[in-house]
Amino acid sequence: MESPWDELILSFSRTSMFPFFDIAHYLVSVMALKREPGAVTVACKNPLSSWFTAMLRCFGGGILSCILLAEPPLRFLANSTNILLASSIWYIIFFCPSDLVCQAYSFQPVQLLAAGMKEVTRTWKIVGGVTHANSYYKNGWLVMIAIGWARGAGGSIITTFEQLVKGTWKREADDWLKMSYPSKITLLGSVMFTFQHTKHLAISKHNLMFFYTVFIVATKIAMMVTQTSIVPFAPLEDTLARVLFGNQQLSASGAKKSETKSNGTESSTSKPTAEASDNLQKKHSKTE
Amino acid sequence: MESPWDELILSFSRTSMFPFFDIAHYLVSVMALKREPGAVTVACKNPLSSWFTAMLRCFGGGILSCILLAEPPLRFLANSTNILLASSIWYIIFFCPSDLVCQAYSFQPVQLLAAGMKEVTRTWKIVGGVTHANSYYKNGWLVMIAIGWARGAGGSIITTFEQLVKGTWKREADDWLKMSYPSKITLLGSVMFTFQHTKHLAISKHNLMFFYTVFIVATKIAMMVTQTSIVPFAPLEDTLARVLFGNQQLSASGAKKSETKSNGTESSTSKPTAEASDNLQKKHSKTE
Amino acid sequence: MESPWDELILSFSRTSMFPFFDIAHYLVSVMALKREPGAVTVACKNPLSSWFTAMLRCFGGGILSCILLAEPPLRFLANSTNILLASSIWYIIFFCPSDLVCQAYSFQPVQLLAAGMKEVTRTWKIVGGVTHANSYYKNGWLVMIAIGWARGAGGSIITTFEQLVKGTWKREADDWLKMSYPSKITLLGSVMFTFQHTKHLAISKHNLMFFYTVFIVATKIAMMVTQTSIVPFAPLEDTLARVLFGNQQLSASGAKKSETKSNGTESSTSKPTAEASDNLQKKHSKTE
Repeated sequence: MESPWDELILSFSRTSMFPFFDIAHYLVSVMALKREPGAVTVACKNPLSSWFTAMLRCFGGGILSCILLAEPPLRFLANSTNILLASSIWYIIFFCPSDLVCQAYSFQPVQLLAAGMKEVTRTWKIVGGVTHANSYYKNGWLVMIAIGWARGAGGSIITTFEQLVKGTWKREADDWLKMSYPSKITLLGSVMFTFQHTKHLAISKHNLMFFYTVFIVATKIAMMVTQTSIVPFAPLEDTLARVLFGNQQLSASGAKKSETKSNGTESSTSKPTAEASDNLQKKHSKTE
Repeated sequence: MESPWDELILSFSRTSMFPFFDIAHYLVSVMALKREPGAVTVACKNPLSSWFTAMLRCFGGGILSCILLAEPPLRFLANSTNILLASSIWYIIFFCPSDLVCQAYSFQPVQLLAAGMKEVTRTWKIVGGVTHANSYYKNGWLVMIAIGWARGAGGSIITTFEQLVKGTWKREADDWLKMSYPSKITLLGSVMFTFQHTKHLAISKHNLMFFYTVFIVATKIAMMVTQTSIVPFAPLEDTLARVLFGNQQLSASGAKKSETKSNGTESSTSKPTAEASDNLQKKHSKTE
Repeated sequence: MESPWDELILSFSRTSMFPFFDIAHYLVSVMALKREPGAVTVACKNPLSSWFTAMLRCFGGGILSCILLAEPPLRFLANSTNILLASSIWYIIFFCPSDLVCQAYSFQPVQLLAAGMKEVTRTWKIVGGVTHANSYYKNGWLVMIAIGWARGAGGSIITTFEQLVKGTWKREADDWLKMSYPSKITLLGSVMFTFQHTKHLAISKHNLMFFYTVFIVATKIAMMVTQTSIVPFAPLEDTLARVLFGNQQLSASGAKKSETKSNGTESSTSKPTAEASDNLQKKHSKTE
């Protein structure tokens, strides 16, 4: 039977991202870029570099998945409409007289709305990535997970690369050595959508899309309202880690050993424990 | 009507780059590599690494455009003739007894001739890149601009990557934070040829090629003769920047703010202004 | 005539790498990873990152050749069986209670056997790379050499990239400024197999495979038994270098000059002379 509820979810899963959700995504990404120290200076000194950085923030996930599948990384430039949209948003945000946009954006509900809509685009990206990867490798479910993950949260890796080349990179490697919350949630979603696609998960795609979207939007907004970074499945993670890799004392001793041993290791391994609070507020002013 | 003038330009636009202009390009590139301190040492200690670096300098633009279009970056190795040509030039320059080539090259007119011919190859590369990109994306004019730019001036980016991997890289990132003059002129040319290709610029291709080539060769030679770096359209740039991104005082204040704020930013943004003299001597004591 | 000797070699050259030799390769690679300081800590703190690093070590050569030929770098994920194999080996090595595997591996004969079998896989990789590249560029023998080399010894370059992004990278760039012994031997093999493939080397492929494998296995085991790094063709190299690039005194003087000049050069050029013993033991605990 076709209940109105199903129809609602179905129509939701067919929503087009194009005008409004994309705008929200670009808005959040570019605002996060502007809040980084020095970004305004770069924008005035060398607008092209700033524009390029903004584009990488907006389309990073797609670029990464293109690289991983050996498709032209420049494909995102072929979609002139979205480029124009993102560019105008970048221009308004950086060069609007008397920072009207930023002042409007600093209004809490606007941030909540934009962040929520950005999270919605994440679901669509993951689904697109999984479906796209499936067209390459019929039953390469690992590839599907990887591409879905790259589309959804790969922007930060591209940003890391770009900062590496530009030389403005503080050795953090958060997304490598300690996955940020968006990365984790995106990985979970990518796994779920992949298993749904390979029929290992007995749920219809539009239902999964709806519930996953509701979940990430709710958690994101909750994390923004209560300034703490609540992690819904932290206990589950801990138990899983204890069962699979169950040797925390070894890790602690290893950490000490490595700290005494080499600098490069110490700077990378002991960061999570040291700068937890720092990471926290960073996580809010950071896009994927 | 077919005036002799048109015939001249037409035949000019059909000139083949292969033997002589390519040689000039390789000569200038490898000489620039040899003048970097430590390059000779590397060439003697590990010829293969030096040869690889030289090839990257000679074919960097093509490699970058291949990467951006997801074509095999090794394609340049398939053209054995050019590889052989560049390799022999590299060998002669680095291992010629009593540095005959370098002494001949230090003769001013030779440098002028070689530099001029190298600039000619730039035009051909841009045109080739624009046409090649058009075969991928019919009306992706942004892609065409990017590929033309990459072919014409992308060598420096590839070199940056290579130095990054080799570890001999001082955080300058000039071509990112402050576009060099060749990058600017190449970007302008790429835009012009793209618009000519998409029929937005009412000028025949061979005319544009001729005038653009004359312009870049003239400016290049003028910059070499008068040791100053004259920038023909600096005023135009300034007015454009003032109209579009017209907030220099903001940039100044932002620069101050960022300097006080964080180190990473300071090292990247205030470099041009603050560490000019430092950069100068760094440029002399730079290794390959 | 078909002597039993020929049959033996032929059957040898048709040996499948899949179950056992691949296991040996994964075992050696992951053990080398575990011996790096801090690796155990990372594995406990962030298993995913450690798993990813291990996969890069195991499949790095294939990934690099995929990148160089513009094939999907994620293809290695499509081969689920090998991924599963390598993952289980990674899991056993890192999380086996009371380090049974490591204790077994520290037993000398086991190491010799594993290292020998790993060298066998090197031959197969080179041959595969050369044949694969030939399917792209009919007579691009430079591409064939490069791909064969990348498949055989490219893992270290991929690892360098990964460490670069993760920030845990000590500026060594050994494989760039001073080729390690495995790189040299792989390059030699790649050249030989390419010339055999282009019929410039009058020897049947299975003979060449057999003799090359015997050679690299013997040298590898000899280097492991006698803790010295014997280099079989060092004199040949020296004579070749003296004939082609015959200016050792220039190199020496240049080395001194550069050492006094800048740190970047000193750390890269004076490494071979300074840290020979260090490099030695590093070379044994290092995979390509």
